[in-house]
Amino acid sequence: NRVHRIAVIPGDGIGKEVMPEGVRVLEAAAKKFGFKLAFDDFDFASCDYYEKHGRMMPEDWKEKIGTHDAIYFGAVGMPDRVPDHISLWGSLILFRREFDQYINLRPVRLMPGVPSPLANRKPGDIDFWVVRENTEGEYSAIGGKMFPGTDREVVVQETVMSRVGVDRVLKFAFELARSTPKKHLTSATKSNGIAITMPYWDERVKEMAKNYTDVKWNQFHIDILTAHFVMNPDRFNVVVASNLFGDILSDLGPACTGTIGIAPSGNINPERNFPSVFEPVHGSAPDIFGQGIANPIGQIWSGAMMLEHVGEHDAAAAIVKAIETVLSQDKLRTRDLKGPASTSECGKAVAAAL
Amino acid sequence: NRVHRIAVIPGDGIGKEVMPEGVRVLEAAAKKFGFKLAFDDFDFASCDYYEKHGRMMPEDWKEKIGTHDAIYFGAVGMPDRVPDHISLWGSLILFRREFDQYINLRPVRLMPGVPSPLANRKPGDIDFWVVRENTEGEYSAIGGKMFPGTDREVVVQETVMSRVGVDRVLKFAFELARSTPKKHLTSATKSNGIAITMPYWDERVKEMAKNYTDVKWNQFHIDILTAHFVMNPDRFNVVVASNLFGDILSDLGPACTGTIGIAPSGNINPERNFPSVFEPVHGSAPDIFGQGIANPIGQIWSGAMMLEHVGEHDAAAAIVKAIETVLSQDKLRTRDLKGPASTSECGKAVAAAL
Ligand SMILES: CC(C)[C@H](C(=O)O)[C@@H](O)C(=O)O
Ligand SMILES: CC(C)[C@H](C(=O)O)[C@@H](O)C(=O)O
Repeated sequence: NRVHRIAVIPGDGIGKEVMPEGVRVLEAAAKKFGFKLAFDDFDFASCDYYEKHGRMMPEDWKEKIGTHDAIYFGAVGMPDRVPDHISLWGSLILFRREFDQYINLRPVRLMPGVPSPLANRKPGDIDFWVVRENTEGEYSAIGGKMFPGTDREVVVQETVMSRVGVDRVLKFAFELARSTPKKHLTSATKSNGIAITMPYWDERVKEMAKNYTDVKWNQFHIDILTAHFVMNPDRFNVVVASNLFGDILSDLGPACTGTIGIAPSGNINPERNFPSVFEPVHGSAPDIFGQGIANPIGQIWSGAMMLEHVGEHDAAAAIVKAIETVLSQDKLRTRDLKGPASTSECGKAVAAAL
Repeated sequence: NRVHRIAVIPGDGIGKEVMPEGVRVLEAAAKKFGFKLAFDDFDFASCDYYEKHGRMMPEDWKEKIGTHDAIYFGAVGMPDRVPDHISLWGSLILFRREFDQYINLRPVRLMPGVPSPLANRKPGDIDFWVVRENTEGEYSAIGGKMFPGTDREVVVQETVMSRVGVDRVLKFAFELARSTPKKHLTSATKSNGIAITMPYWDERVKEMAKNYTDVKWNQFHIDILTAHFVMNPDRFNVVVASNLFGDILSDLGPACTGTIGIAPSGNINPERNFPSVFEPVHGSAPDIFGQGIANPIGQIWSGAMMLEHVGEHDAAAAIVKAIETVLSQDKLRTRDLKGPASTSECGKAVAAAL
């Protein structure tokens, strides 16, 4: 009997409300598809923990969660209580770096029952992947300030791209593109403005493409690419981008499909040397926390991505299908999607639809 | 009698086709509003020039165009013939830096006759400004490569923000916000990920805001901000952003209003120590060049911004009004907006509507 060991970290805010629904659906899937999930719960990587212990995670956090098959994560951040640079860099960003989760993967898909802010788009019209580099690039803490407090004050910050770092995300993206029917890849660049790192990115894309002659590819500068997300979202299949550009595109993409409230994501170490983290794209949403109205679909969909990652392909596909079934029904949707359902009613409906 | 000296640089591709229409409308406006425009034509800052002379501009380009009241620019770049980093960094980017055009200003407005890709938005619903820092920030050429050709290969590039550079764009944006009915400003940031320069940006925004207690302001991280452009474009009034973020937002904004094909922009030195450059946002569009079908509205609208800059406020407003009149009529629109008009028919129609 297959057993997958899952570290469960609800984190902050609505993370605590949507996580039980995610776990509920995963358990239903395990039962149905004949595998076992061993869940371990952790209270760290949360602002509550920070306020008690003066740090986001215990010193031995890597031992505690480093050998699980995956980490199922809710949301982190309560900016009114703990500054983001402490809460995020002390948890999520640390996971990405220390567990070498160099892929951030997000599906962008227009689902039934979710009205798109774009005119004349229906489910099926928008369906692509954003593959984001997740460990280096523009997200560095290298740099500093000179002449502080004077008119000459200047701050500098390095963007750092390594061949290893760029090539491995490109390889993942080209492999993903190859596995899709369209076999198409788009690279996000800005080599006409960001004159050192982005031309390098382009150079590596060109080089990597030589190994994937069956994959057609193109590239757009990030400015016009965001415009195409709005004007021609049907043109994309796999979009690969640096850490910053991927961050932007993987919020803009879900916005074009109606809501970032249901979007899932995976922070993935493809080699499985370390556990990967699966989390909804929405944050902790302190403004609606505690009312039982948060939409659990992003958490549940992230659970499906996690099952995919641990090899439970059928169960993963079944969850996505169940999500579509539930979203299609007005009375099973939560308030953000103009439905009457509570967080747990929506979660139970997905489990039942399985 | 007021005379404004204008340097005219059509540049490449459709720049050469839309420029005559821009000039036509400006001349009509001058006649109607009783001022004079003295145009000087220049063939440099084009790939034709580059191929003849091995450089984008003559050595004495600053003397040639440095004392005009403004520069009216078409488009530059023919990537199949001259790499972008040569054509753009040898002209447009050079203008911005050498003429200290530290403001890049772009109106984002949903115009009549231009269908928005967003559902249920009508003219008037979207109407705001993007104020972009135009001389520093992420657009640096500082950095380099180490261990080239090996697995250890690494490229680094500096983002550089100076207090002078940040404060002056913020001041311009707050002044602009103050001059609008809504008195609202939004700052684009990413201080939760770009951990040195963006927190500095935030700090300066907070500081500058103290001088503008009549202006309400907020800030969004660039990822969710692009999502709001799509979901809630009616919420914005003045959006201020760094060089890169402003570049992205000022393409995404016009895309949300239907087309970047009609969007204008100004590269402005507010102190008028140097001439400012006004140019349409669309590029040289080699694919449609030579067919007489390019839309001249972006060039014409840029002309209106130029008149505003040199103090001809009534004429500027009248051109924008004439553009709206023409766009409202199916048969006066160009092919990109599903009309039958040629470039010059559309241009003549705007001049006539004046
Ligand atoms: C051509 C390119 C370098 C330029 C920029 O990024 O500034 C363009 O996109 C713009 O917005 O004027
Ligand atoms: C919270 C923030 C640092 C993070 C990021 O920018 O990576 C978030 O936006 C995300 O996409 O996971």
